[in-house]
This record gives sequence, C-alpha cells and structure tokens, in this order.
Amino acid sequence: MLVFFSIVPVGGASSLSNEVADAIRIVADSGLDYQVTAMGTLVEGEWDEVMEVVTRCFEELKQDCSRVYMGITGDYRKIRSDRIVSKVESVESKL
Amino acid sequence: MLVFFSIVPVGGASSLSNEVADAIRIVADSGLDYQVTAMGTLVEGEWDEVMEVVTRCFEELKQDCSRVYMGITGDYRKIRSDRIVSKVESVESKL
Amino acid sequence: MLVFFSIVPVGGASSLSNEVADAIRIVADSGLDYQVTAMGTLVEGEWDEVMEVVTRCFEELKQDCSRVYMGITGDYRKIRSDRIVSKVESVESKL
Amino acid sequence: MLVFFSIVPVGGASSLSNEVADAIRIVADSGLDYQVTAMGTLVEGEWDEVMEVVTRCFEELKQDCSRVYMGITGDYRKIRSDRIVSKVESVESKL
Repeated sequence: MLVFFSIVPVGGASSLSNEVADAIRIVADSGLDYQVTAMGTLVEGEWDEVMEVVTRCFEELKQDCSRVYMGITGDYRKIRSDRIVSKVESVESKL
Repeated sequence: MLVFFSIVPVGGASSLSNEVADAIRIVADSGLDYQVTAMGTLVEGEWDEVMEVVTRCFEELKQDCSRVYMGITGDYRKIRSDRIVSKVESVESKL
Repeated sequence: MLVFFSIVPVGGASSLSNEVADAIRIVADSGLDYQVTAMGTLVEGEWDEVMEVVTRCFEELKQDCSRVYMGITGDYRKIRSDRIVSKVESVESKL
Repeated sequence: MLVFFSIVPVGGASSLSNEVADAIRIVADSGLDYQVTAMGTLVEGEWDEVMEVVTRCFEELKQDCSRVYMGITGDYRKIRSDRIVSKVESVESKL
C-alpha cells in the first residue's frame, strides 16, 4: 500500500512547518519507507501499518488545533512493494 | 470527525456501481451518519469509528481487484457533531 | 465532467462559512448543476466551464487570505451527463 | 501556486505507466518547475500556467480512455516561490 497524506491545521498561523515537522518525526520513527514532498508525505507499508502512522500524526496535531484538515490518497496493488522508487523509475523508463 | 471518501478499483470495468454499492452497504451497516454523493460518501463519527468503516470497505473491494485507488478527506473540529447537515445549513444561512 | 471541489483558507479563523458562502454564490451564478455538501461542492459541466467556476472561486478567496488550500477531484466519462443525480441512483438501485 | 496532481484512467489496464509518461512529457515541456513522485506530480507556477498544463494532460489522456479520474491539490501563498524545494527544507530544518 502506497499512501500520500497531508494534515493541515486550520485557524492558526499560516506557516505550518513546525506542525509538519512533528508529523514527519512520527513517520520517520515508524520505520516505514517514506518520502517528504512539498505537498505531502508518501509512506509505504501494509494498510494497518500506514493507518497507524497517519492516526498518530492526526492525534499529535489535533492536540494544539481546534480544526484539522487531512487528505489521504492510497494506491493498493497486490504483490507489489518498493513502489516509492519503482513507480517513478517505471515512468522514467518510458520518457 | 467528518470524512469524505471514495474507493476506485482500477484496471477493470469502467462502470463501478456494483463495487460502490458493496461499500455503501458496509457504511449503512455501521450505524454512523452518512450521505452518498456522486463523487464519494460522507461519514461522521469518531476517528476510530470512521476509519474502521473505511478499512472494511477497502478490504471488501480489494478482494476482487488487483489495484484500488482511494481518496479520504477529513475535517476534524473539537466539540462539534451533526455536521453533515449543520455545515451546509451554516453556509446556506449566509447566501 | 463531474467535479468535487473545496477551497480552504489557512491561517485565519477556524470557521469558514462566510468564505464558503462567497464561493457557493459564484457556483450558483454559473448556471451549472451543482450540489453543496458538508465537505465540498459538486459541479457538473464541460471541463472548461467547471474550471472557470473553480478559478473564480479561487480568485475570490485569495483576495482576503494569505494562504489558500484547494482540493479538486474530477470524474470524466465520455457521453454522460446528469451524473450528480444518476450516479447515486445507479448505486441505490443495487442496494 | 504549488499543485500536486494525478490523473488515473479507469476501466483499462491496471498498469498506467505509459499514460503517466505521456502526462509527464507535457509537464516537462511546459518549462515549469516540477517533481515526479510515485503518487502524483508537483508543479509550481501561476494558477493559469499550472491549470493549462493540467488541462493538456487531461486532454491527452481522455483521448484513449472512456473514463478518467483526476485529483488536484493546490497550495497558494502570496509572495512565495521555489516552494517545491523550500517547503521541504523548511520542515527538515526543524527535525
């Protein structure tokens, strides 16, 4: 399971990098493969593993925010892994 | 927690209403408030309740599909409920 | 083309119903079929028509906000229309 | 304007790398800053520039597909640029 997610506190400061850093630390501690981008974080693992990480990030951010928006996009394929790298390579090989 | 989600099997038929109906049945059986729209389903409940429903829908659809896309958008506010109806009313009162 | 979109000002108040009402007025004035939900607005039309409406909503909201998040999900099918209603009916007929 | 987008043909093969490669070529030809990830492509530019690129990708993919799903997430900030790199650096500096 490949997941791209972002969590956005609403109703506070417009700079969110401290909150995002808190979330990234949780992702890094999970031991799962991940990639940070300017629009969200990719995480790869089994559904339960990934959802546990997303849940922890949400729990962390909602402590200090009265409103939190969250976007999660998932891409599941049977019998596939290492897709954070391989999906991009597969596309690049066709360019 | 208000969640809007959609699950799309990729790589099969282009009509997906049977798969969507399977997912809606799971949402309805959960007892949570929900609303079906042409682009996804709104569900309201605690994070764990809603994620359990989304997980069941995913487990159901991935049985018959080699690839599944999923989009989840969440909107959390402390001390708020009945928002499937009240958010729309709050906007309509300002039109 | 069926589009579901939401626009969220970041870094201001946590209640957003005034901003959302401004956007809905633009959608209503467009003459396109639409449906307001608690998590976003569905609009149906040709790609150019729908994107013009989304662009106007964005222009309106960015006037008063230093940061704006936006989510757009599109579902295109050749030779289909009236899908805001018919997609839901198609699913309900299978429940 | 920073945009993350993905376009997914529905109802064909479950491998989509050829279609994605077609879209990436359009993004690359635009001259805008971009980054390809396993879950979508980041593009940075003015709203009109970015939407023109997304529109071209959609026009390309819909030629061969009877159904196309599309997800677009936008993050607008006044007076900011080079955010594909700087947003990630800003977070990393706080880890």
